[in-house]
Amino acid sequence: MSDLSAVKAALKNQAVETPSWAYGNSGTRFKVFAQAGVPRTPFEKLDDAATVHEFTGVTPAVSLHIPWDRVEDYAALAGYAGERGLRLGAVNSNTFQDDDYALGSICHPEASVRRKAVAHLLECVDILDATGSRNLKLWFADGTNYPGQDDIRERQDRLAEALQTVYARLGDDQRMLLEYKFFEPAFYATDVPDWGTAYAHCLKLGPKAQVVVDTGHHAPGTNIEFIVATLLREEKLGAFDFNSRFYADDDLMAGAADPFQLFRIMYEVVRGGGLTADVAFMLDQCHNIEAKIPAIIRSVMNVQEATAKALLVDRDALTAAQRSGDVLGANAVLMDAYNTDVRPLLAEVRTELGLDPDPVSAYHRSGRAAKTAAERVGGQQAGWGA
Amino acid sequence: MSDLSAVKAALKNQAVETPSWAYGNSGTRFKVFAQAGVPRTPFEKLDDAATVHEFTGVTPAVSLHIPWDRVEDYAALAGYAGERGLRLGAVNSNTFQDDDYALGSICHPEASVRRKAVAHLLECVDILDATGSRNLKLWFADGTNYPGQDDIRERQDRLAEALQTVYARLGDDQRMLLEYKFFEPAFYATDVPDWGTAYAHCLKLGPKAQVVVDTGHHAPGTNIEFIVATLLREEKLGAFDFNSRFYADDDLMAGAADPFQLFRIMYEVVRGGGLTADVAFMLDQCHNIEAKIPAIIRSVMNVQEATAKALLVDRDALTAAQRSGDVLGANAVLMDAYNTDVRPLLAEVRTELGLDPDPVSAYHRSGRAAKTAAERVGGQQAGWGA
Amino acid sequence: MSDLSAVKAALKNQAVETPSWAYGNSGTRFKVFAQAGVPRTPFEKLDDAATVHEFTGVTPAVSLHIPWDRVEDYAALAGYAGERGLRLGAVNSNTFQDDDYALGSICHPEASVRRKAVAHLLECVDILDATGSRNLKLWFADGTNYPGQDDIRERQDRLAEALQTVYARLGDDQRMLLEYKFFEPAFYATDVPDWGTAYAHCLKLGPKAQVVVDTGHHAPGTNIEFIVATLLREEKLGAFDFNSRFYADDDLMAGAADPFQLFRIMYEVVRGGGLTADVAFMLDQCHNIEAKIPAIIRSVMNVQEATAKALLVDRDALTAAQRSGDVLGANAVLMDAYNTDVRPLLAEVRTELGLDPDPVSAYHRSGRAAKTAAERVGGQQAGWGA
Amino acid sequence: MSDLSAVKAALKNQAVETPSWAYGNSGTRFKVFAQAGVPRTPFEKLDDAATVHEFTGVTPAVSLHIPWDRVEDYAALAGYAGERGLRLGAVNSNTFQDDDYALGSICHPEASVRRKAVAHLLECVDILDATGSRNLKLWFADGTNYPGQDDIRERQDRLAEALQTVYARLGDDQRMLLEYKFFEPAFYATDVPDWGTAYAHCLKLGPKAQVVVDTGHHAPGTNIEFIVATLLREEKLGAFDFNSRFYADDDLMAGAADPFQLFRIMYEVVRGGGLTADVAFMLDQCHNIEAKIPAIIRSVMNVQEATAKALLVDRDALTAAQRSGDVLGANAVLMDAYNTDVRPLLAEVRTELGLDPDPVSAYHRSGRAAKTAAERVGGQQAGWGA
Repeated sequence: MSDLSAVKAALKNQAVETPSWAYGNSGTRFKVFAQAGVPRTPFEKLDDAATVHEFTGVTPAVSLHIPWDRVEDYAALAGYAGERGLRLGAVNSNTFQDDDYALGSICHPEASVRRKAVAHLLECVDILDATGSRNLKLWFADGTNYPGQDDIRERQDRLAEALQTVYARLGDDQRMLLEYKFFEPAFYATDVPDWGTAYAHCLKLGPKAQVVVDTGHHAPGTNIEFIVATLLREEKLGAFDFNSRFYADDDLMAGAADPFQLFRIMYEVVRGGGLTADVAFMLDQCHNIEAKIPAIIRSVMNVQEATAKALLVDRDALTAAQRSGDVLGANAVLMDAYNTDVRPLLAEVRTELGLDPDPVSAYHRSGRAAKTAAERVGGQQAGWGA
Repeated sequence: MSDLSAVKAALKNQAVETPSWAYGNSGTRFKVFAQAGVPRTPFEKLDDAATVHEFTGVTPAVSLHIPWDRVEDYAALAGYAGERGLRLGAVNSNTFQDDDYALGSICHPEASVRRKAVAHLLECVDILDATGSRNLKLWFADGTNYPGQDDIRERQDRLAEALQTVYARLGDDQRMLLEYKFFEPAFYATDVPDWGTAYAHCLKLGPKAQVVVDTGHHAPGTNIEFIVATLLREEKLGAFDFNSRFYADDDLMAGAADPFQLFRIMYEVVRGGGLTADVAFMLDQCHNIEAKIPAIIRSVMNVQEATAKALLVDRDALTAAQRSGDVLGANAVLMDAYNTDVRPLLAEVRTELGLDPDPVSAYHRSGRAAKTAAERVGGQQAGWGA
Repeated sequence: MSDLSAVKAALKNQAVETPSWAYGNSGTRFKVFAQAGVPRTPFEKLDDAATVHEFTGVTPAVSLHIPWDRVEDYAALAGYAGERGLRLGAVNSNTFQDDDYALGSICHPEASVRRKAVAHLLECVDILDATGSRNLKLWFADGTNYPGQDDIRERQDRLAEALQTVYARLGDDQRMLLEYKFFEPAFYATDVPDWGTAYAHCLKLGPKAQVVVDTGHHAPGTNIEFIVATLLREEKLGAFDFNSRFYADDDLMAGAADPFQLFRIMYEVVRGGGLTADVAFMLDQCHNIEAKIPAIIRSVMNVQEATAKALLVDRDALTAAQRSGDVLGANAVLMDAYNTDVRPLLAEVRTELGLDPDPVSAYHRSGRAAKTAAERVGGQQAGWGA
Repeated sequence: MSDLSAVKAALKNQAVETPSWAYGNSGTRFKVFAQAGVPRTPFEKLDDAATVHEFTGVTPAVSLHIPWDRVEDYAALAGYAGERGLRLGAVNSNTFQDDDYALGSICHPEASVRRKAVAHLLECVDILDATGSRNLKLWFADGTNYPGQDDIRERQDRLAEALQTVYARLGDDQRMLLEYKFFEPAFYATDVPDWGTAYAHCLKLGPKAQVVVDTGHHAPGTNIEFIVATLLREEKLGAFDFNSRFYADDDLMAGAADPFQLFRIMYEVVRGGGLTADVAFMLDQCHNIEAKIPAIIRSVMNVQEATAKALLVDRDALTAAQRSGDVLGANAVLMDAYNTDVRPLLAEVRTELGLDPDPVSAYHRSGRAAKTAAERVGGQQAGWGA
């Protein structure tokens, strides 16, 4: 896509969905460090998401997490979002924080626990109906910690049955996004541990079931862009949860740990038509020690920069080199795009959108952080526990 | 399976296929250390396989590797095997050692190279016809070393097309066993890198295509028994390539690096009906520094011991503990079987089969190694290169 | 050590120190599942430790964690332990849960935070004085999450300075045990990430500083027994934190994930004289979903079984095979010990010590769990937060 | 170093040593693909190294590997190099390709093998004397494949003894560079597996012994720049072997797999004074499928680009952000340098040095490859085996 105006148009059209929970407190099992000014309600999370959108211009949607974002009136929440130029995005289920779920949720050995978990998933579809969102995002903490603890195969049967029940409930324009994860919190066998398992279930469920690639949910060394290319080829790539990692599911800012990997992923997205297809680009991160709003702005910018570089790849030259077996030449075409400093291009894009060319600086200059911290005194800060 | 006679019967029925190439020299990229007495022809490899079968009683089949085991007359080779109480097993293709394959074989950017590779695969089916074997085992070294080197998605298209051509050629009783591998020799993107990719291709090909699990071909930390359970549930587990590893595809003796993992794998095999279903149990190892025949005998014994322990699991007690959510109890049932010393049981099994209860000792006492080394003087020792 | 009575004597002399916090609630960042009957005070933790010691006979010492186990009167706590046949073991510092420690403790960029952390470490030495324990166990969560966040080298300087201050405060019979950890909670650079770093610091500090090997704190694939052998050779192995893992710092029961690895570690301990030298054998585990007391009993038994097998290795035969370059023979000697079912031997050892031969069963038969759960109603259950 | 002229001066002064063996054929255990025009003698390797130096201007030294580069007259070889504007660099020993070394070299159980290996190392010091090089680079393939195979601790004793003998032989201006490697070709326990082991040995040997960091020789996830910072702080960083990897010791072109990591490493080098200290920057790579000379040129350029970015880091701003605990600000300072396109700067540097600003293009335009391929017909191409 050597046409610069087409590149700019693509960048202006890109939307990155931010997760409500990233605006709240988070941490590790060792400690959650609270931060000043953290929102206390789903409405305040939307306020923060609106701030991010105000400065980036590309984050109109906000993912919800139930029950963390449970409200009386979801239509009102959607209205509140709309007033701020936002829309409610994916509804994320939570079947891992109830005391009943110590040994799993929809894969639990007891039918009563499975029923409870399925009921929650169906509630999430109700919320989709209420908010007008289309994406039901399912991640299951289900798994076992010890060999023999439960029957691996029966857990797959239970999983398939529960997913089928939920799938049957989906409306025509709704879809189920199934996320896999290598490990944590299960430490022996996770019930949806890899893309193959998620893919196999989605295939049986039907076209409304697709796979979520969370960039932090793989075994060491996994070639994530291969998975992306494969799922796009199979028309089963539904969404990304972007974040970055050096070790496990570190949930650092997207693009922070391995920007080259993010570029390679975005290149496969562009090459496989994922930018214009119905793939949702979401963040799923934890800003444990850094300020949350600027961290989210930075993450969005990192995704944009990777996308811009991917769009700048000289596809004709690349194909020519690939077809002729020119290993170094083909690699050089890709690296040429990667090594380009795309920050001026993105600054232009922002200016053309009426935004400040430097979102992080603009945010800092706005004094928003101090203002919010002063306003949000008292109450219970949002976090994973509430 | 608390009935000891049933356990013994299962152990007597188990067959482990040994690979012809494990009898030849092997090594790393740094050095191949030649050993005395190594076979020089496919016929001598069969002689060695017959020795292993003579002492273990459970290794009647021998995998071939083409072109390493190319002969004028495959029927004669099969006859030679038959005379020694053996049969020819899987035919393994080789599309990685011809100079044309530097950038791949059936995924190569050039159609002429792909055609050459497919022709080789079809030749392997001809050999199946000639030997009466049913298993065509396909492992592809195909992949790329550098980002951008070739188009990941087009390589999948080429792969699919070639596999389809070969699949169409299979006889009614033949099947295609597709092996995946995490990396090596490709160091950036391998074209069949994980079970999900192999599964997706096999699913489209049809019921005669199944997946091979090589226990050394996974990312660090991968739960292999989960994959085994899943593939059995999907009826897509075709075969095992057993070996063991501490790091990468180390190809050490099966059971040498993590005997508990081998036990867990065999437990899922037993639990999923894989012992009686049509799953082929093969070794695929490199005995770089240890004597080959006793190493293979030891590997077979390790597989047998893991199988015996898996058969000894008290399934009723396990299920009861699992269903009641008794984490420690369920784990203890599994561990009780694992901690059992099954060597006396296997000694009994061997004695009942008319074998020496201690195959390694018996082999050493036989003086076979010295005799063979004395006989096999001169000529070109078999290895990966020939 | 083919003399069985010597093996038994060694097993009877072995002591495994249990951690007070393993008796309390624990979990992942996703959820802490509370369990019935969990202790509410350090005294109740000692009660539970006494129960474990009652059934195993080899767990006389209990590690404390400050501030989780902070009491008014440590002498009284020591006395309480003594009345139950226990003694207080290592004092573990905690410089990761105060709000000031978001960016580190003794490596923090601000001197005031470093001083606060050092003051806590010195308080821990005071507690050693009060309890008569000798081991100050130091693990630092210090590190950074993002490249550039802080200066790696200056953090080492700060670390060295703080350790020196604390080292200077140690009494003649006290020692500092420095623990390393690959990652978590720091996700980019941990300040003591590997044995080399811990070793280098201990070497400069002097003979009273030694390294702790936590079996869950290594990169994937790390050969832990090599580190054990090396540290013993360097006389710098101070202690073990036993637990097991499939993925990261999973903190599963010792011996649960890879019993062969635990055996290899114990073999190097035995071979290097670590069983009789001054190496402390500690557990450091999280029983997130399984009952805590029986899980600890099982872990202790797993350590005992690995030790028994290590003691049973025929050292003369092993050395002979090793010296003659007999790869398979040497491996077989080791495996022969590993494959032995040592449970009868340990049952004998326990009977000779006046214990029930089956500690887990005996614990369950005792009705202790139900009794404790009934007694411990109300109050605040112990966990990592208190 | 905000002064651009200082940055340029540093870049002009940087020297990257290229390895003679990278000009020869290489491959994996599966296949060595020969390339046209590959040198047949050490002299022709120097010709190729001169070509690389001609186009890059920063590769004056060439590492030798003995016996692959064994010649009658090393002074003549040095003279040949000198005539081409080159000098002979590190002498790399090889104690892994003789049949005697199947079970190790200086750690081998048999004293006679150890003596042979030590004799080879001493021969390498003789070559240092003859060539005037100062760096003896030692990498040992020594290790074991199976638990129990040999005694881990005794192997350390043998290692220490051999290194001491060689160290004692070093001239005043010579030094020993000890390289560690995680695994391969040893698949269970490598005798120098990590920086800690290399460091501990070097510390005991004395100031003339230093550690080599090969960027491909670490466990997955290892923070290499931490090791670099630590070794520089300890004054024990002697040299780099640059290459890159996605999986194991893939030996891809430096900077190809994770350019951000290479930048972080070079930042720690710059920050720790390694650029002006006596640290040797070497390549150690295998160009299995790509043309060798342009691959080496590209690798050198990648090292230069990483160095340029590292030099461009605004150290004052970084320190200010670090000291004030501004996580995002500090990270942003680092990333700002990384995201800069330094290719124009390096083009300037080259022009000022009288070089073509685009070395790869210039090389291709020169027609050198075709010319060399036409000249080098017949003979035995260089590779690892000769």
